[in-house]
Amino acid sequence: MSKSIFYHAGCPVCVSAEQDLIHLIGKEKVEVVHLGEESSRIEDAEKAGVLSVPALVTPNGNTLHINFGASLDDLKS
Amino acid sequence: MSKSIFYHAGCPVCVSAEQDLIHLIGKEKVEVVHLGEESSRIEDAEKAGVLSVPALVTPNGNTLHINFGASLDDLKS
Repeated sequence: MSKSIFYHAGCPVCVSAEQDLIHLIGKEKVEVVHLGEESSRIEDAEKAGVLSVPALVTPNGNTLHINFGASLDDLKS
Repeated sequence: MSKSIFYHAGCPVCVSAEQDLIHLIGKEKVEVVHLGEESSRIEDAEKAGVLSVPALVTPNGNTLHINFGASLDDLKS
């Protein structure tokens, strides 16, 4: 099974959601991407339908926006 | 380990998120509550910090709001 991708930007809301989801889903099944540090991956996130972080893109391509930390536009500057 | 609780109200956004999360976390680890049908449980959801559905309350008590289907206030009428 392919991995889910958890996109975040290091904000407290993101970190809290990350810890919970990794615990629930299993660390080996989730790739974690920090868009604040890896801005080259913002484009991938947008293509997957991510509008804000934290967000989880599931193996079947659905994007789940979780709580609300920051919009992707805020990460581009 | 205690279960997570997934609160929803049957809307398309909820059902899509439900299928994904149950698949990722495992059906046996998630209790699903339809607040449109079980309105007596809205109070529990509110106590857990749920503001809108779909939402996942994790075993350690954190509430993750996922995408946005409906606010709890809309389910009370």
